Order: sequence, then structure tokens, then C-alpha cells
Amino acid sequence: MPIVQISMIQGRTPEMKEKLIQRVTDAIAEALQITADKVHIVLYDVPKENIGHGGIPLTKINP
Amino acid sequence: MPIVQISMIQGRTPEMKEKLIQRVTDAIAEALQITADKVHIVLYDVPKENIGHGGIPLTKINP
Amino acid sequence: MPIVQISMIQGRTPEMKEKLIQRVTDAIAEALQITADKVHIVLYDVPKENIGHGGIPLTKINP
Amino acid sequence: MPIVQISMIQGRTPEMKEKLIQRVTDAIAEALQITADKVHIVLYDVPKENIGHGGIPLTKINP
Amino acid sequence: MPIVQISMIQGRTPEMKEKLIQRVTDAIAEALQITADKVHIVLYDVPKENIGHGGIPLTKINP
Amino acid sequence: MPIVQISMIQGRTPEMKEKLIQRVTDAIAEALQITADKVHIVLYDVPKENIGHGGIPLTKINP
Repeated sequence: MPIVQISMIQGRTPEMKEKLIQRVTDAIAEALQITADKVHIVLYDVPKENIGHGGIPLTKINP
Repeated sequence: MPIVQISMIQGRTPEMKEKLIQRVTDAIAEALQITADKVHIVLYDVPKENIGHGGIPLTKINP
Repeated sequence: MPIVQISMIQGRTPEMKEKLIQRVTDAIAEALQITADKVHIVLYDVPKENIGHGGIPLTKINP
Repeated sequence: MPIVQISMIQGRTPEMKEKLIQRVTDAIAEALQITADKVHIVLYDVPKENIGHGGIPLTKINP
Repeated sequence: MPIVQISMIQGRTPEMKEKLIQRVTDAIAEALQITADKVHIVLYDVPKENIGHGGIPLTKINP
Repeated sequence: MPIVQISMIQGRTPEMKEKLIQRVTDAIAEALQITADKVHIVLYDVPKENIGHGGIPLTKINP
């Protein structure tokens, strides 16, 4: 059942997303001792200007 | 007050989204015995490559 | 695939939650023309003091 | 640590988003008496047709 | 319309939460030039053991 | 920056959660080629009655 949501900087390739989905699913299945088919993941691609750390948008922290 | 968030495969028409918003609002209002004006919905359109079930992206499960 | 998240005032009975899950799933399946088994729902029970509309906690709007 | 997620109508400028990130971070830091560097914000830009209040999409409430 | 979700360490008093709701609503209304009644906030109280930074639970970073 | 949110059945021990946070952070850092300190995770513990698959609460699917 775990529902996993990952918000991350946009621009990753389909291959990177596939790897991410695989690895995170395996990590959860192993840590929670459940089968991989129970894990559902959604990735949200977010532009840098939409992310803030310490009150500063990522476009200014790491342009 | 219910806040409803639905992440789904992108590509639905405005008409489909309107129907979705209507039906889900009615379902919640009825089940929780509240008025429809209390229900707030946000839809998130997600590409297939961003969705994983069992460690596999939806692009490979259902291309 | 739709992932549905509903944040609502805590205190609903298991029967009400079951009805909510059923109705919302049916509404989504019908509106999006998908089968019910694709719909995943998570409910989050939230105390009134954690909900704000217009800057006012629900405990003061509707005690 | 607070993780803040704001879903809002798309179309805001980078300057508006920067101001939003600043102000919300300051508000949280002050209200919770923590330092600003602990606050993480993600903004989600959503088209009007994806937002529903009272069962009606925002495109029809406020075209 | 903005929907705001704040996940934070559990244990804040109702007074602190009220202040948080007020300040964040004001900050958003001002930054986005909208009226406060459009802002909806939900707070999620989370135990320290459920929060991880850099792979380490907050219980170990800041016991 | 990735913000990771995992909604799962309540009842895991602090040790299991710690392992989960570690493994998921490592998986993301490796897949996205970023350092672990950029990864922020929040776990949400949810009772079985709050989770629905195919319109049926988890309490009835897997009591």
C-alpha cells in the first residue's frame, strides 16, 4: 500500500525516472518487508523557481 | 472542508475534468453528509513516466 | 492509477469512511472511464485546530 | 523542518513566487519560533480547470 | 484558491497553530494580491521519528 | 531538494522507520546522483480503515 510522492527539480530523463522508481520501490519493499507490487510512486516535476529553502528560491541558491 | 487531491495521468479534456470534479464532490458531500460548497478539489496531471507501480513506470506497464 | 488524498475533519466512523471510499472510487471510475481497481485512496484525519479558512482555525469558525 | 506545499493557479511570475517563498517562510519562522533555514517550500502551479470548489471548476466560477 | 499544506513536528499548542494559520494566510494574501478568504490551510502533525533529513531521522539529529 | 512523502499503514517501529528513511534516501541519492543531505522525507502513519484500493477499505481486503 505505501503511496510515495516525490517532488523534485524538473528535467530528469525517462531513464533516470525509471531508475528512481525501481530503486525507491526496492528500498521500501526491503525496509518494510512487503512485496514490490504494493508500492505506488508518483513523481512531481517542479521548476527551480517553485522551490524554496530558507526563504530563498532555488534559482538564487543554485542557478 | 475536505481537501481532495487527485494525481492522475495527464491528457484528460476539460469536460472530463469538470465531470470528475462534479461527481467526486457529490460523492463526498453525500458520504460525509456535508454541503458541496465545503469540498475543495485539486487535480494534478502527471505524465505516465512519472508513475510507478511495483517498481515499473506506467510507460512500460501500459505504453 | 489515480491516487486520491482526502484531508478531512477527524472523527468519522469506519462505516462512514468505507462509504466515502466506495462512493469516491465509483465517481472517479465513472468520470474517467477506468475500472475501480485502479483507484487508490488515502484519508487523512485532521483535528479542527489544524484547518484554516481565511486565516481562521476551524475551531473558531465552527466550534 | 516544516515542509510547506502550496497549490495555486498557474501564471505567477518568478518575482511573485520569490516574494511568496520569502513571506511564507518568514511567517512560519516567526509563528513557530524556528530559524528560516528550517523551512522548505514547494509550489505547484495548477491550471484553473484542475481546481474545483463546490463541485464547479474554477474556469466556470471565475473565467 | 491556494491550498496550503504544512507538515511539521507535532506538539504545537492550539495558540501556536492559530498564529501560524493567521500569519501564513496574511503572507500569501499579500504576496499573491488575493483576499485572505481564498486561502485554505491544513497542518499535519508528525512525530520526529517520521521525519528524515539526509537519511537520518530527526530523533537522532535533534533528540 | 527532493521532498519525499510516504503514506503507509501505521504501526511500524522507530527502527523500521529509521531503516526506511535510510534506504529511501540512499536510493534517491544514487538514482538522481545527488548527495543524501538534499533528501527530505516525511512519513504519514495511516490506519487501515483510511486506505482504499478498488473502492474497498484495507480493513476488509486484509483484516
